[in-house]
Amino acid sequence: MAETVGFVGLGAMGLPMVKNLLAAGFGVRVYNRTRARAEALIDNGATVCDSAAEAATDVRVVCTMLSDDAAVESVTVGDDGILNALAPGAIHLSLSTIGPETARRLMTLHDLHDSVYLAAPVYGRPEVAQAGKLNILLSGGDAATRESVHPVLLAMGQKVWDFGDEVGAANVVKVCGNFMIGVAIEAMAEAFALAEKNGVSRLAIYEMLTQTIFASPAYVAYGKLIAEQQYLPPGFTVPLGQKDITLAQELGKRSNVPLPIAGIVQDKLIAARAKGRDEMDWACIGLEAAEAAGLRQVSHVPFDDKTSKRT
Amino acid sequence: MAETVGFVGLGAMGLPMVKNLLAAGFGVRVYNRTRARAEALIDNGATVCDSAAEAATDVRVVCTMLSDDAAVESVTVGDDGILNALAPGAIHLSLSTIGPETARRLMTLHDLHDSVYLAAPVYGRPEVAQAGKLNILLSGGDAATRESVHPVLLAMGQKVWDFGDEVGAANVVKVCGNFMIGVAIEAMAEAFALAEKNGVSRLAIYEMLTQTIFASPAYVAYGKLIAEQQYLPPGFTVPLGQKDITLAQELGKRSNVPLPIAGIVQDKLIAARAKGRDEMDWACIGLEAAEAAGLRQVSHVPFDDKTSKRT
Amino acid sequence: MAETVGFVGLGAMGLPMVKNLLAAGFGVRVYNRTRARAEALIDNGATVCDSAAEAATDVRVVCTMLSDDAAVESVTVGDDGILNALAPGAIHLSLSTIGPETARRLMTLHDLHDSVYLAAPVYGRPEVAQAGKLNILLSGGDAATRESVHPVLLAMGQKVWDFGDEVGAANVVKVCGNFMIGVAIEAMAEAFALAEKNGVSRLAIYEMLTQTIFASPAYVAYGKLIAEQQYLPPGFTVPLGQKDITLAQELGKRSNVPLPIAGIVQDKLIAARAKGRDEMDWACIGLEAAEAAGLRQVSHVPFDDKTSKRT
Amino acid sequence: MAETVGFVGLGAMGLPMVKNLLAAGFGVRVYNRTRARAEALIDNGATVCDSAAEAATDVRVVCTMLSDDAAVESVTVGDDGILNALAPGAIHLSLSTIGPETARRLMTLHDLHDSVYLAAPVYGRPEVAQAGKLNILLSGGDAATRESVHPVLLAMGQKVWDFGDEVGAANVVKVCGNFMIGVAIEAMAEAFALAEKNGVSRLAIYEMLTQTIFASPAYVAYGKLIAEQQYLPPGFTVPLGQKDITLAQELGKRSNVPLPIAGIVQDKLIAARAKGRDEMDWACIGLEAAEAAGLRQVSHVPFDDKTSKRT
Repeated sequence: MAETVGFVGLGAMGLPMVKNLLAAGFGVRVYNRTRARAEALIDNGATVCDSAAEAATDVRVVCTMLSDDAAVESVTVGDDGILNALAPGAIHLSLSTIGPETARRLMTLHDLHDSVYLAAPVYGRPEVAQAGKLNILLSGGDAATRESVHPVLLAMGQKVWDFGDEVGAANVVKVCGNFMIGVAIEAMAEAFALAEKNGVSRLAIYEMLTQTIFASPAYVAYGKLIAEQQYLPPGFTVPLGQKDITLAQELGKRSNVPLPIAGIVQDKLIAARAKGRDEMDWACIGLEAAEAAGLRQVSHVPFDDKTSKRT
Repeated sequence: MAETVGFVGLGAMGLPMVKNLLAAGFGVRVYNRTRARAEALIDNGATVCDSAAEAATDVRVVCTMLSDDAAVESVTVGDDGILNALAPGAIHLSLSTIGPETARRLMTLHDLHDSVYLAAPVYGRPEVAQAGKLNILLSGGDAATRESVHPVLLAMGQKVWDFGDEVGAANVVKVCGNFMIGVAIEAMAEAFALAEKNGVSRLAIYEMLTQTIFASPAYVAYGKLIAEQQYLPPGFTVPLGQKDITLAQELGKRSNVPLPIAGIVQDKLIAARAKGRDEMDWACIGLEAAEAAGLRQVSHVPFDDKTSKRT
Repeated sequence: MAETVGFVGLGAMGLPMVKNLLAAGFGVRVYNRTRARAEALIDNGATVCDSAAEAATDVRVVCTMLSDDAAVESVTVGDDGILNALAPGAIHLSLSTIGPETARRLMTLHDLHDSVYLAAPVYGRPEVAQAGKLNILLSGGDAATRESVHPVLLAMGQKVWDFGDEVGAANVVKVCGNFMIGVAIEAMAEAFALAEKNGVSRLAIYEMLTQTIFASPAYVAYGKLIAEQQYLPPGFTVPLGQKDITLAQELGKRSNVPLPIAGIVQDKLIAARAKGRDEMDWACIGLEAAEAAGLRQVSHVPFDDKTSKRT
Repeated sequence: MAETVGFVGLGAMGLPMVKNLLAAGFGVRVYNRTRARAEALIDNGATVCDSAAEAATDVRVVCTMLSDDAAVESVTVGDDGILNALAPGAIHLSLSTIGPETARRLMTLHDLHDSVYLAAPVYGRPEVAQAGKLNILLSGGDAATRESVHPVLLAMGQKVWDFGDEVGAANVVKVCGNFMIGVAIEAMAEAFALAEKNGVSRLAIYEMLTQTIFASPAYVAYGKLIAEQQYLPPGFTVPLGQKDITLAQELGKRSNVPLPIAGIVQDKLIAARAKGRDEMDWACIGLEAAEAAGLRQVSHVPFDDKTSKRT
């Protein structure tokens, strides 16, 4: 049996990732806020813990896979946090998509505790995680430390991409890439509306483009949703997409890089939320483009002239 | 009695302008494609003509007030056109908002006929025309020729703004100014939606801003429509607004000047047209902002997955 | 002599405002982080204090005029803060431009201390403050409390605009209005570049438009800077402008209102910062438009092909 | 030997396409405005003609491969044009990227002459044309007629994508696809500038993304140029890119489909032209993003305050 690692966060991504770790022979100490999701892994051989600290006890590596910066910070610090429990030299392998500033802040905290923080955000939707085909970006620590976590990472993914010692680098790349996915979605949303309104079926243009110049996973997966105008159930919801675009915009503002198309994608996501579409896949900005083009009927609810309020 | 002038084009602007010329003592030879609008001026003392050429006969100055570049070119050339009828040295006073390139082309044609083309686009909606309070921009010819048309112009407007010998200059300014109006509309559309959604009434913010930092005619007039969400009847329709923004964009493309906010305003006007709002005032892009903010209910008409067509 | 009030924050705006209070016969207890600026007011009759708390002692009303949300919160709480010193029923009159969320948070704190928080952001650049001609927006508390601060406000401004009991309302309006100023700047930046490149002088179009359809303080003041391409010394710097556009964008994101032109203005301000223009007036986005149009020469510093770094 | 076809237009694309036709055993009657380029093909077996009409004589199929709508229309009509020479039932196979409206107009002209117009725009840069790996979109005529040109098309490309009888359909898809390429370029321009400014090398992020989620020809080819900031020699120049984005915008305006990111890409191309970059590949909008982020030094040429002209 391989070594035992800790794992905190059993959402749509974390759950299949832990299953792959177990299948590869790792022991896994799991913690999840909703305990039921952890218990479902007992039959696979996981050890269920009552806190992040417990999951980080007596392991060389503890992984976290959580939804945003605040969640990672919250399981790291405090009495029940990872930092408190990690042995000297042990590694916090942070798989979440968070901002590079947060990564740097967390690294400093780990330095003070003689533990190591490595950034390892992953590419792939839940079905890719399940297939163990994630692409994993890695930065922080030193080359030897990063090398030492490859076996853990390769149990969950197909390839590790090394971005060097600067801990924020992997998150910078992840934020840039997710921003580019958002732009690809908006591009297809606009182009498919243009095609449809000019007599070309959405599926016909989708199939041609994604088998030729845009034959890549991001276009194939998201283009299908937009071609079929099918946004439920979501693979990645509107609020999660908005979180990622916001990370890019904040990084742009902090480092003085204008991102005009990020602004457009953000506005579409805001409009989607304004219309109550939080539960849809973020590809539903395809609906915004369709509505703006008059492809969906917009009802004319009369305003009350005096108050400018909806009647 | 003052001199007799020609006048071609009796739309929402041309009609009150001719009435003011007649009231100021000018004789006016009028021509309009729909003859009934011309005949309505007989009692005011106008002479009704059967063609643009006839209106341009035996006058020192013939005015044209038409909806777009093509219309001005069409009444200028051909057997029944102005050029054919103008005496040597006579002046075509072109009051329409058209592109500077068209103005230069028309000037060249007049040069060849020994007549003069002056650009004199006007600022003011129909009610301003009626009050004789238009602001009139003037360029082309030479200083003496421009001076010679001041009495005609001041019968219709409150002030003449001289932009020199280059015939395109007045149209450049007009196009820039109308583009800026479109931006002011979009700014209020966004800001008033933001205010409303945060509990401030549209009228309250409108009144404060247009009595202080934005106390100017463009904001007062268009802001009222957006505050009251009242876009019918139109003072200036969506297609006319789109024509003006398109003129700015074409000028920008020809002279290599990026105009990012013109692009946004154009997109809002396109969306308004897609939703069947051609008959509304172009301030109705206030509706686009309200809909994008979820302030109006957007109906969810289901798409047929196979065809991507509306069911 | 009228009553004595407290005043915290003696920047470019606060200083002339206190002078006007003193001139109107108010006693003023002043506090400023840099004490020298406070001492300069001794001859005018001000009492210099060593802390915000001291300025808030034994007064019915203490004013704050600071640069951002964090600064207002910091002088409010803590041992040396206003809250600690305010008598029951006394009023914190907050003149700064901050977000409505911050205002609501501060109001809650004051409620707990039996003191009152009123939002009173002001319109006007420093020269307007000096002339006592500010427009002041007011919200929070109840009608009688707001009425009770009118004498204080009218010593500094020409008019008080009442936006009711909801404490965030005045800040919502202020944020919307400042966003609209940013848009007006961008509109002129684009339009004046378009005019210049088509042979019309910036000053000529500026004068015509700001005496007619855009004859309002925002266009007159900022348009002059853009027409003359003169951005030093600043009346309101790039980082301050960016703070205000960011407030609008955050309000938009929180309340689900897309603001496409706010995104464009933000990007221009980011570019200005990237080019080292923090010390300029935020109207310097006129330079961005000029550069994008090739009106200023952009040097071609060669990149090193292998590293993509500047050589 | 296979049949003999006509071919008009021997630019960077046409030349290798004709070579492939000849290599596949077709006879080819070639015409090019600059005759020298045609004569260079004599050794390969081509027959050089003196006009488009001559190239269209005695053939079942004549191909055209030209730079824009006007060029295609000009070789089609007139005494020396294709229409005049085509036998009844013969086919004009139009390989250029033009607007669907132009295609429909040309189809009507061919109908009147009892000849057939087929739209067959191609995907692939010159090196792809050389390798005979183009993807070819096909629409117009009827299924049998389209089937009959497959041998000709497959001598030049790897696959024919059929879009049915509506002649404009292939061009609609081509215009949409090229617009999406422009967006992909802008997305990488922004993202790579963001990465570079945050310490990640352009090549590192390029390699990771184009081997994973964006592993498609459009990203691989254009991303390399942007990662290396190498825009000379061009594969597709700025004015050609601008032509394609303009086709998309005009199609959007005609069919009422807002295309916000097309507007942003257009503005970047306009800025590139304003800075004298017509000879660069249109991927050079990577320079615009770098400059806006301050990654290249922008010189501060002083303006003359009085005239707003460059000194």
